[in-house]
Amino acid sequence: MAITLVGLDADDTLWHSESHFALTEDRFQALVKPWSDPSETAERLLSRERANLELFGYGVKGFILSMIETAIEVSEATIPPAAIEQIIGWGKEMMAHPVELIDGVPDVLDALGDDYRLVLITKGDLFHQESKIAESGLADRFDRVEILSEKSPSHYREVLSRCGDVPPQQFLMVGNSLRSDVLPVVAIGANAVHVPYNITWGHEQVQLEDPPFDNGYRQLTSITELVPLLDQLSAA
Amino acid sequence: MAITLVGLDADDTLWHSESHFALTEDRFQALVKPWSDPSETAERLLSRERANLELFGYGVKGFILSMIETAIEVSEATIPPAAIEQIIGWGKEMMAHPVELIDGVPDVLDALGDDYRLVLITKGDLFHQESKIAESGLADRFDRVEILSEKSPSHYREVLSRCGDVPPQQFLMVGNSLRSDVLPVVAIGANAVHVPYNITWGHEQVQLEDPPFDNGYRQLTSITELVPLLDQLSAA
Repeated sequence: MAITLVGLDADDTLWHSESHFALTEDRFQALVKPWSDPSETAERLLSRERANLELFGYGVKGFILSMIETAIEVSEATIPPAAIEQIIGWGKEMMAHPVELIDGVPDVLDALGDDYRLVLITKGDLFHQESKIAESGLADRFDRVEILSEKSPSHYREVLSRCGDVPPQQFLMVGNSLRSDVLPVVAIGANAVHVPYNITWGHEQVQLEDPPFDNGYRQLTSITELVPLLDQLSAA
Repeated sequence: MAITLVGLDADDTLWHSESHFALTEDRFQALVKPWSDPSETAERLLSRERANLELFGYGVKGFILSMIETAIEVSEATIPPAAIEQIIGWGKEMMAHPVELIDGVPDVLDALGDDYRLVLITKGDLFHQESKIAESGLADRFDRVEILSEKSPSHYREVLSRCGDVPPQQFLMVGNSLRSDVLPVVAIGANAVHVPYNITWGHEQVQLEDPPFDNGYRQLTSITELVPLLDQLSAA
């Protein structure tokens, strides 16, 4: 069945995001180094973020709160309040940071838009995601924008239903996260393309036993390879 | 033109919310009393929340961050980290707090559902709002759920478009906030009913020169009066 609808993830697929988290985490590790070495800090922060996910969901505000809690924890509540103010300041920088598109994205969207309906599918903080979409200048290239609290198989089924009951076989999802953009999509019988970003947040990391091509999805090294791949699929 | 679509706000219209914010703010004022008297604390916190809105949007996580910043500010960075941990703990309690429906809500929705399409229209944190909607047990009574980052006239126009291009005259919105649920709805030529909650957050407070009935909307003292009002409007 021919693909008619292409879904694209946003953070680390259309624009850079994880690099800002990684930069802030480097600064955070340096800030709390008097109490905790960087690898221990990284481990405690990730475990705090995971524990907070079910209350806070995804996004920068939850990340700031997890850093503050980790700082208080590793310092045994001796960290100066000015350091906590500093952490909040970094968070605000992240929220206000200009959107930086990944190379080639506007041309890829232009080319795809000629042949497919496009839907932007992202998860996380509604307010921050909307701000980034508006600032990206890409909103007009999409038929729909779907901001989800999570990307599970049932969330993808609901998106297809809202797009006019598109059959899974006609849907192809593109994104950098195996956990969020690829595996749940394959699970509902739809098509997925994995375009890894150079950094992956610990929580999104997945270890696979089989090589990608045996798992029912394709892997590309750059989003610019997407147009030739779709041409090839539609000719097949 | 007869009303066909009824929109209902969620926080402080279907379930209690502001009372939890107010309780937390009381605790916060007591916490920072060594540095700032409660009325000054209230003023500084509101001004901090307003300044943060454009970066953080609405919701509990932004509220927690604004309290932490206010605590550091009023204490001139001398507040103990354990107090900051306490503030985050209150925020987590708010996020995890069970949903408490406002009296009469399920019956009102049942009665309205017989004659109108119902859409839940709320703003704020996507993750927390979805959790509350799921927990409320009310999701099935609505044809649609719209979680918005803001409630402006253009946001309401988009909702009507997504509901199948419903004309504004056929839409009636019900909510506790003049700023969010009433004035922008009246501004697009739709109908609005104001059901005040016993507490209104400072940012949502609006001073009107004219009495409510001259402003193009109705005011009720309880959501249970909504069914008779709609019966009356449809008979007119």
